[in-house]
Amino acid sequence: MGQKFDYDMIVIGTGPSGQKAAIQASKVGKKVLIVDRREFVGGVCVNTGTIPSKTLRESVLHLSGFRERNIYGASYRVKPKITMDDLNFRCGHVMRNEIEVVKHQMLRNQVELIYGVATFVDEHTVKIIQHKGDQLVSAENIVVAVGTKPARPDRIGFKENYVFTSDEILSICDVPKSLAVVGGGVIGIEYASIFAALGVKVTVIDMRPSLLSFVDDEIVDALVHHLRHQRVTFRLGEKVESLEYNEEDDRVVTILASGKRVITHKALYAIGRSGATDELNIAQIGVEPDHRGRLKVNEHYQTSLPHIYAVGDVIGFPSLASTSMEQGRLASAHIFGLQTNSIPELFPYGIYAIPEISMVGKTEEELNEASIPYETGKAYYREISRGQIIGDQIGMLKMIFHLETRKLLGVHIIGEGASELVHIGQAVLAFGGTIDYFVNTVFNYPTFAEAYKVAALNGKNRLSG
Amino acid sequence: MGQKFDYDMIVIGTGPSGQKAAIQASKVGKKVLIVDRREFVGGVCVNTGTIPSKTLRESVLHLSGFRERNIYGASYRVKPKITMDDLNFRCGHVMRNEIEVVKHQMLRNQVELIYGVATFVDEHTVKIIQHKGDQLVSAENIVVAVGTKPARPDRIGFKENYVFTSDEILSICDVPKSLAVVGGGVIGIEYASIFAALGVKVTVIDMRPSLLSFVDDEIVDALVHHLRHQRVTFRLGEKVESLEYNEEDDRVVTILASGKRVITHKALYAIGRSGATDELNIAQIGVEPDHRGRLKVNEHYQTSLPHIYAVGDVIGFPSLASTSMEQGRLASAHIFGLQTNSIPELFPYGIYAIPEISMVGKTEEELNEASIPYETGKAYYREISRGQIIGDQIGMLKMIFHLETRKLLGVHIIGEGASELVHIGQAVLAFGGTIDYFVNTVFNYPTFAEAYKVAALNGKNRLSG
Repeated sequence: MGQKFDYDMIVIGTGPSGQKAAIQASKVGKKVLIVDRREFVGGVCVNTGTIPSKTLRESVLHLSGFRERNIYGASYRVKPKITMDDLNFRCGHVMRNEIEVVKHQMLRNQVELIYGVATFVDEHTVKIIQHKGDQLVSAENIVVAVGTKPARPDRIGFKENYVFTSDEILSICDVPKSLAVVGGGVIGIEYASIFAALGVKVTVIDMRPSLLSFVDDEIVDALVHHLRHQRVTFRLGEKVESLEYNEEDDRVVTILASGKRVITHKALYAIGRSGATDELNIAQIGVEPDHRGRLKVNEHYQTSLPHIYAVGDVIGFPSLASTSMEQGRLASAHIFGLQTNSIPELFPYGIYAIPEISMVGKTEEELNEASIPYETGKAYYREISRGQIIGDQIGMLKMIFHLETRKLLGVHIIGEGASELVHIGQAVLAFGGTIDYFVNTVFNYPTFAEAYKVAALNGKNRLSG
Repeated sequence: MGQKFDYDMIVIGTGPSGQKAAIQASKVGKKVLIVDRREFVGGVCVNTGTIPSKTLRESVLHLSGFRERNIYGASYRVKPKITMDDLNFRCGHVMRNEIEVVKHQMLRNQVELIYGVATFVDEHTVKIIQHKGDQLVSAENIVVAVGTKPARPDRIGFKENYVFTSDEILSICDVPKSLAVVGGGVIGIEYASIFAALGVKVTVIDMRPSLLSFVDDEIVDALVHHLRHQRVTFRLGEKVESLEYNEEDDRVVTILASGKRVITHKALYAIGRSGATDELNIAQIGVEPDHRGRLKVNEHYQTSLPHIYAVGDVIGFPSLASTSMEQGRLASAHIFGLQTNSIPELFPYGIYAIPEISMVGKTEEELNEASIPYETGKAYYREISRGQIIGDQIGMLKMIFHLETRKLLGVHIIGEGASELVHIGQAVLAFGGTIDYFVNTVFNYPTFAEAYKVAALNGKNRLSG
C-alpha cells in the first residue's frame, strides 16, 4: 500500500491460465501486463500441445477414414498414402487462427502484451529481456503461468526426426511405420492412439503397471483392449534403460531394464514435463520450485509469497487447458477479492485419444475407498441408433449412482463425442439430480445422449435384480 | 371387467411409439401383442424415415468432405463422383441392424409380434389380415401407433425415379444435378440441405411465407443464409399448380400458381404426411380420423374411446421419433396406472439438416408473446477452439434467460453436434438453473460445449451494458 507499481498485475505466460487471469483482472478495470517469451501467444496449448494434437487427431480421424471403417471395412482409407504434410495442413490453419483470437482478446480487454523472457528482480519487479534491451516492470501482484517443457534426460539419445518429445512431433518428416512411445500418460496415450489409427505399429512403454490411474478401471480396460486391436503393444512395468537412433540400420533401439529390445522407426519420449521456471529466477525471491521445476500453491493458487500466484501446468496435475483456465480466473478473482463459485469436484477430464475418454465426478475406485454404496448403469454405443449410424463398436457410457438416494455420483465415457457428452452428466451432478432424471427425460433421436437414458434404465433394472 | 380378452394390450404399429408402449406394458408383467403390416419392424422411423435419412446424412457428410471444406477448400471431396449406391451402402447396413435390435427387444421383453394388416372389428377386437388367413385378437386396451404415409395428391405427376416422396427417395437411381423440393417442413429442409451439400442445385418451394415456424427466427435466418450459400433457391409463399416429368427433355417441370416454372432433373414432394389409418376401419367403432387421416387424443393420448389410445406420428406434431417414444411410454403408463414424471416443456427438437438445428425451452417469439422479460447470450462456433478445429463457420448457440432471475429459459443451436449439445441446456432448464451455472462451470477444452460458457458470458455482459 502507498507504494506505486506500474501495474496492478503482471501475468507471465500467455497460455490458457495466463490469458484467463489477465482477462478476469481487466474486466474489473485493473491495469494488467501479460508477458510471453515467444511472439506466438497461447503457450504450449496453442503452439505445441492441446490445439495441435487435437487438430492432428481430427485430421487423422478424417483422412484415415477411421470413423467409417466399421461401415466400409478395415482397409478403408480416405487418402491411401497419408503424409505429415497432409496432417499438418489443418494444424497451421487452426494455430494461426487461435493465435489471432488470443491476441485480439488481449487487445479488446486492454491487456498490455510484451514479448520477452521474464525474470524476477525482486518481489514486485520483473525484468523483461528483449532483443532491443531489457525493461523493468513492477506490479502489486504477479501470476506465474509459465507452463512446462518436456523433460530431456541425458540417457535418452534425442535426435531430430527420430527420437523426439511431443513438442517436436509435428515437425517429423514422415509418418513412421513403427513408433515407440515412452510414457503411458495422457500425452503418450493420445499420440499412441492417433498414430495407431493411421496404421502405425505402436509400442507403449511405461514403468507403471497400469495406465491412467485417475481414470475408471473399466474405461482404461476398454481403451487398452481397443488399442491392442489396433496393433498397439504395451510394455508396462518396464523401465527404459536407453533409447537411441542407430544410423546404420536406420532404426531406433529402446533397451528396457528387463533386457527386452524394442526396435522401431521412430520414438516419442513423453515422460514428465517440468515446470518452465529455469529463467524465472524465482528462487532468489524465496519461492523455490521443486526438483521438476514446479511451484507449490495453496487452495487460492498462492505460492509461499501471498502476492505471487502460480496457475496452469506449472503447478502440476491435471495440466489440462480447461482446468488451467479456471485456475487463472480463480487466482485473479482471489487477488482482487471477487466472489467466485467454483466446484472442483465437477471439473471434467477429457482424454483426446482415439477413442475419446471423458469423465466427471467419482470413479468406482474412489467410492469403494470411501465406502459409499453405489450401483452402476451402462450403455454401449452399439445398442443405440446413433452408435449404429456412426459405426462405433467400442463406445460405452457408465454412470455411477448412490444405491439409496439414486443420486448421480459419476459419469465415465469412452467413445465418439465423450468429451462433449460428459457435460450432460456434469449438469445433473451439479444440481444433485438422480438417475430418474435420465429415465424421465426425452432425448433427441438419434443421438449419443440417449446412452444416458439407456444406462439409467440399465442401472434401475439392476436395483430390482 | 369380468370379460376375458386375449391380451392386456394390443399395439398396432412397431415404430418408436408402438415399441415403447409395448415394452412399458411388458415391464409390468402385462400380456402384450404388437402388430405390424410389414415384416420389417420399426415403422417409418427405421425403414423410410428417421434412420435412413440420418444415415444418408452421415454418408453425405463423410463422402462429400463437407465438414472439411472450410479447411481444405470449397472444391474438396472425399469421393469425386458420388453415386446413390455409395450413399445407400451404409443405410442398408444400419437398417438391417436396427430391425434386428427392435425384434430382439420385443423378444426379450416377451412382447408377441404378428405381421399382418390390423383392422378393427369391434371396440376390443382387431382382425389381423395375413396371407395365410385372418386372425381375430382381443384386448382390454388398444394403442394405435400406425404412423403416417406421404400424401400423394392427384395434381402431382408422381413417377418413379423422377417425382417421388421421401418414402422413395433412397431408391432413386442417381444423384440428380438439380432437385425441386416441394414443402419446406422438417423433411423437406433436411433433404434439401443434404442434397445441397452434395452439390445438387436445389429449389425449395413452400406456400408459407417462412420456414419452420416453430424454430427460433434467428436460427431459421442462419439456416436460410447458409442454404443460399449452398446454392439453394427458395420460392416461398408460392403454390405448386402442377408438377410432372417431361420425357421429351428428361426434366421435371414444376409450375407455380404465380406463373413461374422450376425446371429440374428430379422432384421430391414433401408436403403433408397423412395418418396411415385407411385400413384400420376405426371410424366404424366411433373414432373418426380427421381429413388427413389423423387421430385426435387428449392429454393422456386417449381417443374418444378411453381404452383406445393413439401415439406417434398419427396424432400429428411434432412427429419426432424421440417424442413418439415418450408418447408410447406415457400412454402405456396411463393404461396401467403407473406413475410417470414427464415434462413436455423440456422435450428437445432436433432437425437433422446440414447444418444441424436443435432447441429446447422457449423461443424469443413465445416469450415476447407472453410478455416475459428476457435477455440473450450468443456464442459463434468460430469463436471457440473446437469450431476452429472442425472448420465450422456457421455454428451458433443462443441462450435465452430471464432478465431478473437469470434463469435459463431456452437454448437454440445451429451447427455441428447441435442435437447432442442441446441436452446440456436441457438439464440446466430441468433443474431451474441460471446462466451463472455456465459461467462457473469448467468445460472440457476444446469442445463445442464451451459455447455455453461463451454465450453465458456474452449474456452477462449484455446485462451490464
